[in-house]
Amino acid sequence: MSQEKSTIPGNHQQVPLKVLAIGSAYEDTILYVDKFPPEDGKQRAQRVEKRRGGNAGNTLTVLSQFPLTQGYFMASMASKDASAFLLHDFETHNIKTSTCIFRSNAELAPVAYIIYADNTSSRTIINYNSIDELTFEEFKRKFEAACVEEVDTLNNDLPFNWIHFEGRNVVEVAKMIDYIGTKVWRPRTKISVELEKPYRRGLETLMSRADVVFFSKVFAEGKGYNHAGDFLQIMSPHCKNTALLFCTWGSSGAMCYNNQTRKLSTEPALPIPSVVDTVGAGDTFTAGVIYGLTQGMTTEGCLKFACELAGRKCAQVGFDCVVEKMSKLF
Amino acid sequence: MSQEKSTIPGNHQQVPLKVLAIGSAYEDTILYVDKFPPEDGKQRAQRVEKRRGGNAGNTLTVLSQFPLTQGYFMASMASKDASAFLLHDFETHNIKTSTCIFRSNAELAPVAYIIYADNTSSRTIINYNSIDELTFEEFKRKFEAACVEEVDTLNNDLPFNWIHFEGRNVVEVAKMIDYIGTKVWRPRTKISVELEKPYRRGLETLMSRADVVFFSKVFAEGKGYNHAGDFLQIMSPHCKNTALLFCTWGSSGAMCYNNQTRKLSTEPALPIPSVVDTVGAGDTFTAGVIYGLTQGMTTEGCLKFACELAGRKCAQVGFDCVVEKMSKLF
Repeated sequence: MSQEKSTIPGNHQQVPLKVLAIGSAYEDTILYVDKFPPEDGKQRAQRVEKRRGGNAGNTLTVLSQFPLTQGYFMASMASKDASAFLLHDFETHNIKTSTCIFRSNAELAPVAYIIYADNTSSRTIINYNSIDELTFEEFKRKFEAACVEEVDTLNNDLPFNWIHFEGRNVVEVAKMIDYIGTKVWRPRTKISVELEKPYRRGLETLMSRADVVFFSKVFAEGKGYNHAGDFLQIMSPHCKNTALLFCTWGSSGAMCYNNQTRKLSTEPALPIPSVVDTVGAGDTFTAGVIYGLTQGMTTEGCLKFACELAGRKCAQVGFDCVVEKMSKLF
Repeated sequence: MSQEKSTIPGNHQQVPLKVLAIGSAYEDTILYVDKFPPEDGKQRAQRVEKRRGGNAGNTLTVLSQFPLTQGYFMASMASKDASAFLLHDFETHNIKTSTCIFRSNAELAPVAYIIYADNTSSRTIINYNSIDELTFEEFKRKFEAACVEEVDTLNNDLPFNWIHFEGRNVVEVAKMIDYIGTKVWRPRTKISVELEKPYRRGLETLMSRADVVFFSKVFAEGKGYNHAGDFLQIMSPHCKNTALLFCTWGSSGAMCYNNQTRKLSTEPALPIPSVVDTVGAGDTFTAGVIYGLTQGMTTEGCLKFACELAGRKCAQVGFDCVVEKMSKLF
């Protein structure tokens, strides 16, 4: 167990923060069963749980726990009726959804059914998403409306301190980032991209446009690498020469490569009493980095802070109060 | 293909009908996949569909399509919020749910997840129901309120022409049937029980109290019988000596044993162009028998009518307009 003092800054001056995250939101239904059912069999679940899923939304859920921090979620969603569960959950977590597009003809929200088998700890996933992705024009309309609404509310003329994208819908997202690049306030915001799925095409297009790039272990392994450091150095030429590249590596912690200084930093995972729930650990790490960088932490400080935040998330079910626990020892 | 004329009575005088059915309602989510996922795998569904499930409710859905017929569903449900999908579906089908009990602390309706694999036509089911069963006291309260409301609306002083029970929650249901037995109008109503699950205990208690008993093939096979006729004759001593016993047998049709006349009747399944969807075929058969008997058909007429109705249901997805199709040839 870690007996070190937490890395959360104690009485520092909090910088108000507005984060826009663009991605996809899922209704996750988790079916807890004793054992995975045989094909054609009938099985009773011990418990069924419904959660909001989706990486960008998870990151906002954690970010929203920090003081003076407002999250905005943007996605192409099903009809408002079909999105009721998701919207209610965003609202509960104080995340604004006025930036979402609702497709009135889509009667089913994106769903994932996750079968957790107790005897083998396996997770079998069946997912479904029939919602058309967000187009650049839709983004532009919602983004402009949000800018008008948000300018001057917290940070003078800066609508968002940070804009984070899930690495999907590549062609349209590239246009979105280029559009943000035309804004006079662009140099004062940060743009990040999170790359999780290695099989998606054209992701280099997004890497080259982001100030901060988040890679998953699955992504690195899918590209044929089994070490985060090697992988980040290979990826670095595809990124901006001022970019920061992060890669999480499960129980081995995470690494960061600074493309400007060419420095590679490593941070081990936080030793925790027992791993309870790793769903969204990477998204929590992302929240930690976004928070740390906007608060003026060093790259190494950020990496350490984000690793601790992700570790504390793994020690609990869900995301509730994980930020609050950063000020406590295990 | 059947070229015979339909068995639906043409211009007969329709008897107004009020049917109360007591059971359980499920939210069925059907996940259509190319192939059943391996344990720990990830699979994309081709389509996801949500349906209301539950035997008694299905029977009412079909009955409600007949003219001058009003269905009432009684069950112990989750909270009204959690039951929104089910309530909306009952309403769409013109089935009254004022007879339901809502458990405000139950945040999840009973659910069944059905994985349909296209390559093997398998159906793998995971279900979950944490709702406490209906108690006799709850039944009595709702039943008395419904009787006050319904007397004189259609059939003079008779609140319900038919009261149908799913064979579950045996101890409480036996008390419910005995309570109905104390009513002066009892001889003018019919009570039926549907027995589907062979492993439930004490079902003889219910058989002995019903005017009409519906057995499934699964039930008969679970008791060790592979012929409907043999099975019904073995069951007959457990039933009232005036009872009618029905047993459906999939593509082999159905049989009826009249405990009074000791006559066994057989009806083959309706030959249909192709079997499209058998979910709820047994419940449709039940609806056919209830309708036929209340309209004064003979036992054999009823059996033929119910077999045709169930067959027509198998030739289509869901229950919509199945009654209307009874007047048409294939």
